[in-house]
Amino acid sequence: MSGKLDLDAILEFTVALARTAGDLILEGSEAIQSATASKDVNEKKNSVDLVTEYDVRVEKLVQEALVKQYPTFKFIGEESYSAGSRPPLTDEPTFCVDPIDGTTNFIHGFPFVCISLGLIYKRRPVLGVIYNPFLNHLYTGIKGRNSYLIKGNGQPLKLPLSSPPKPLSSLSQALIAVEWGSDRIERTITSKSSGFGRLAGNPAQGVQGGKMAHSLRSMGSAALNFAMVAQGGLDLYWEVGCWPWDVCAGIVIAEGAGGIVTGSHDVFAATSSSESFGDITEEILTGRKYIVVRAIGETEGETAKQAQKRIIQEFYSTVEDVDAN
Amino acid sequence: MSGKLDLDAILEFTVALARTAGDLILEGSEAIQSATASKDVNEKKNSVDLVTEYDVRVEKLVQEALVKQYPTFKFIGEESYSAGSRPPLTDEPTFCVDPIDGTTNFIHGFPFVCISLGLIYKRRPVLGVIYNPFLNHLYTGIKGRNSYLIKGNGQPLKLPLSSPPKPLSSLSQALIAVEWGSDRIERTITSKSSGFGRLAGNPAQGVQGGKMAHSLRSMGSAALNFAMVAQGGLDLYWEVGCWPWDVCAGIVIAEGAGGIVTGSHDVFAATSSSESFGDITEEILTGRKYIVVRAIGETEGETAKQAQKRIIQEFYSTVEDVDAN
Repeated sequence: MSGKLDLDAILEFTVALARTAGDLILEGSEAIQSATASKDVNEKKNSVDLVTEYDVRVEKLVQEALVKQYPTFKFIGEESYSAGSRPPLTDEPTFCVDPIDGTTNFIHGFPFVCISLGLIYKRRPVLGVIYNPFLNHLYTGIKGRNSYLIKGNGQPLKLPLSSPPKPLSSLSQALIAVEWGSDRIERTITSKSSGFGRLAGNPAQGVQGGKMAHSLRSMGSAALNFAMVAQGGLDLYWEVGCWPWDVCAGIVIAEGAGGIVTGSHDVFAATSSSESFGDITEEILTGRKYIVVRAIGETEGETAKQAQKRIIQEFYSTVEDVDAN
Repeated sequence: MSGKLDLDAILEFTVALARTAGDLILEGSEAIQSATASKDVNEKKNSVDLVTEYDVRVEKLVQEALVKQYPTFKFIGEESYSAGSRPPLTDEPTFCVDPIDGTTNFIHGFPFVCISLGLIYKRRPVLGVIYNPFLNHLYTGIKGRNSYLIKGNGQPLKLPLSSPPKPLSSLSQALIAVEWGSDRIERTITSKSSGFGRLAGNPAQGVQGGKMAHSLRSMGSAALNFAMVAQGGLDLYWEVGCWPWDVCAGIVIAEGAGGIVTGSHDVFAATSSSESFGDITEEILTGRKYIVVRAIGETEGETAKQAQKRIIQEFYSTVEDVDAN
């Protein structure tokens, strides 16, 4: 594969595919809610199988459609990693897809569930589509262009929704997304709960290192958190332990909305003063630790990027690094 | 005021009023996002004023409409309490309204914001309307009847969405809503963060008292959390520090969906073995501590109410009581 990709055509195709997959996700949700509602123990067991079944069915639907339309493109998703070895990225165009992001929400019927369709090219995320079929919210992004939200059958809304972007003086003004995640060992839980407490706590009322953030939100979908940061409804989102397919589409959408994305505490420390800060390297994309800050309006004393860097600095000095288990 | 209230007529009126108020909330959100996006410091100050302005405007719109239609009814809301004295409930019909629930979300453009319209009669919540204009989700309930969700212009969906209700064996199977709230003193923050950590933590991986809940969610609107429990998308919601107008409508909607609501640790301990458990007394309604559990399918060994009681017992043995400051 060489030359230039027709990203417009790929976007059109993946948007239609995301909507088709969304219908299957809705069908799955109804099947799961009916099955879990059953009093029959055997049927109840089937409800867990149903989650897996629809996860597989949506992945198959998406993968087959992509292979048919783009037979030379590679594909990475949960299955690519499940063999234990982590396939290195190549320069080839590679779809990076989470068929159902927010699986726990999906099981429970909590309507923050989406399909996340990303494309990597020359080892960089270049296109993203995120679709929540429960709310009928569709987010799109192409590297180097604006990102959009389409609600229902409405017109595309340029992201962030407030233009010019809002200022953000410190975490004390921020609405922050954090997640409890699936790693529940003592060390991770203690680190997260104390870190979240410092983010929320008031330093003037006894919370050492407290930032008194406006508040913390947890919706349970990495892709939708990225989308909400892109939209400007959240100021920052921090995540440890998720995978490239959870964030690939969201990274492109957030960047196209003026947001900045980087990796772990260490990656931030090593790269924040370099010119290339904000470049999503392979290390960041596969590093399983992500932080994204929304577009911030520049002021006379500070560029947008400087402000975003300052907010990440404040955040990473408040929460400890945790392992991605 | 005596005799029977025409709750159907009141529901029709308050639903229409909620939709009108929703339009004003959307207008306010656009005004706030535009103002906060401005680089001008004076305009930025105005954005905070704008939040207050729209809060007042929505409350005025609602209160005036209610007074005109129901001149003999009383009204309680934030203003009723702001004088410092807490007016006791009477037997008269009393609207209990939060014009904008989820104010922090409203400021940030995070689309989980609603108007919450409740009615109290003979000291009990009897009617509730919750409307999120951003998602166009409308929830309704009348005491003793089924509750409904109307999405967009769709048909009313009976709540919970899964029928019969799903089982719930323990917190380890639960998706739980908790909030960081506005009280950020050290004692509250430490108690909450450690309690949330126990809810999430794995007892088999070192977290003492860990419940390994499926996960925790924080959306930032008490009324919408109640509505989501009614819907069945959340299993349990616990809140300390909010007010009757935040929960009045939600209580009716949750109860009509088979959910159970009670108050603090102490209230639960004192009432859980009585026949009247689940009755929303004046003490509970005004007590600023609430817990709600969704409808649970009965099993051969356990009624729905016994199961709900067991879940609350497990929850309250995991998190400490905190003060409602």
